[in-house]
Amino acid sequence: MKREQLIAQIKIKKSFLCVGLDTDLTLIPEFLLDYEDPVLEFNKRIIEATHDLCIAYKPNSAFYESRGLEGWKSLIETSKHIPSSCLSIIDAKRGDIGNTSSMYAKAFFDPESSGMNFDAITIAPYMGSDSVKPFLAFQDKWVILLALTSNEGGKDFQFIETGTCRLFENVIQKANTWAGNDRMMYVVGASQGDEFLNIRKYAPDHFLLVPGVGAQGGSLQDVCKYGLSESCGLIVNSSRSIIYASSGEDFAQRAREEAKKLQSEMAEILGGIGF
Amino acid sequence: MKREQLIAQIKIKKSFLCVGLDTDLTLIPEFLLDYEDPVLEFNKRIIEATHDLCIAYKPNSAFYESRGLEGWKSLIETSKHIPSSCLSIIDAKRGDIGNTSSMYAKAFFDPESSGMNFDAITIAPYMGSDSVKPFLAFQDKWVILLALTSNEGGKDFQFIETGTCRLFENVIQKANTWAGNDRMMYVVGASQGDEFLNIRKYAPDHFLLVPGVGAQGGSLQDVCKYGLSESCGLIVNSSRSIIYASSGEDFAQRAREEAKKLQSEMAEILGGIGF
Repeated sequence: MKREQLIAQIKIKKSFLCVGLDTDLTLIPEFLLDYEDPVLEFNKRIIEATHDLCIAYKPNSAFYESRGLEGWKSLIETSKHIPSSCLSIIDAKRGDIGNTSSMYAKAFFDPESSGMNFDAITIAPYMGSDSVKPFLAFQDKWVILLALTSNEGGKDFQFIETGTCRLFENVIQKANTWAGNDRMMYVVGASQGDEFLNIRKYAPDHFLLVPGVGAQGGSLQDVCKYGLSESCGLIVNSSRSIIYASSGEDFAQRAREEAKKLQSEMAEILGGIGF
Repeated sequence: MKREQLIAQIKIKKSFLCVGLDTDLTLIPEFLLDYEDPVLEFNKRIIEATHDLCIAYKPNSAFYESRGLEGWKSLIETSKHIPSSCLSIIDAKRGDIGNTSSMYAKAFFDPESSGMNFDAITIAPYMGSDSVKPFLAFQDKWVILLALTSNEGGKDFQFIETGTCRLFENVIQKANTWAGNDRMMYVVGASQGDEFLNIRKYAPDHFLLVPGVGAQGGSLQDVCKYGLSESCGLIVNSSRSIIYASSGEDFAQRAREEAKKLQSEMAEILGGIGF
């Protein structure tokens, strides 16, 4: 998906919501367990109920891998049910030396090889440029590089002073030389508050993928106050607070209601920048 | 596998060799393509031909993921064919917030959940302590944390000065507080030469997983000159130069010969420290 298509979707839907598909077999409604692939059935119904309110879906690879072969099958099938009008993000935090990253890129970007054709993948920066570039070799695909995460352990290394700036700022500066804002996004946790102002110094109009709104405690208002750019520049993810809004037969309807609340807030915010 | 069991295996086999199973469907002997699972057949024969010469096997997850569902199946089946006397390492470079890392740990350490029961996993450090700790919750399992990698891009961040030391040294110092040398290892690329001396200041008797000997150009003699500890402290990986020594029917025999060359060198080196 191209940057202008993404921005067009944000304008059409008045939304920059990403629904995280962290689908856990032990948390989905019990009646779905009668289906051949309960996780796929759950995801299909969540997608059906929310696709007009969000502009992206983000399956979290770990939740599928934890179930072995069955889980990998659910992931492949789920990827095929994400509408092409939505950005499909695989949250996989991969990254390795060049020839190995090429294999990871095939795993998630090359449907003939692996059955999956995601638009974007999350990547860990520690191994540097050649661990990232193989993903950029695929046309119109995105790298979403970890910059400043919202977990407690994120402070262990990301805030380290590295001369003129901190490590997460150093990551953004270097990665800006690997690709432009049409191919590269950064992960910034929702709880980072006014750190978004610093991020915007280095990435004034990049899209930022922002997890942590909802169950993880981040506030949409704070994220937008400091993080919004003139092209919106935000993709705000919510997983648990949407997909597990109910554990009953009404789970999809309740997911829609939760997504609608966030989308309505977003519509108002977007109005403020003339979208 | 416990540390003392690993050291015992090194003494018995006079080897600290790890065979990397970076198995690529396009590089294995053609006659294997007639088998139902050519990659599994290849791996089984490599293991059969080398298991008395090495103390570890390391499948590289990317090579399996690139083939979609079939590849994941090959990985699960391969994991079952690694003898319990050898350390089984999944080279997966994972790492995410706590609840997601727990899922990755289940994927590779919990056979009831996923079908896989590896002894050790490679982890990227960027997201800090809570991205690592869920793997340590599994008894006798190892985390092998990226410290100083041998790829060109490794220089982008790992050598950054962070006050009193460089980032890779900072990673080792912090990770030493998360687990001892009985549960934590570090990845250090074979081409790092006398940087091993600096690593040993911070991790005097940790095991280091050293990729890059052989096809990637690192020298076993250099690695040992600077990296050997009194408990050996090295697991040296070679992938391509062993497993692709021949593309003919003799591939397993030729793999054995290449493994034997390295093991003979290692036996001599180990003799020098009284093993």
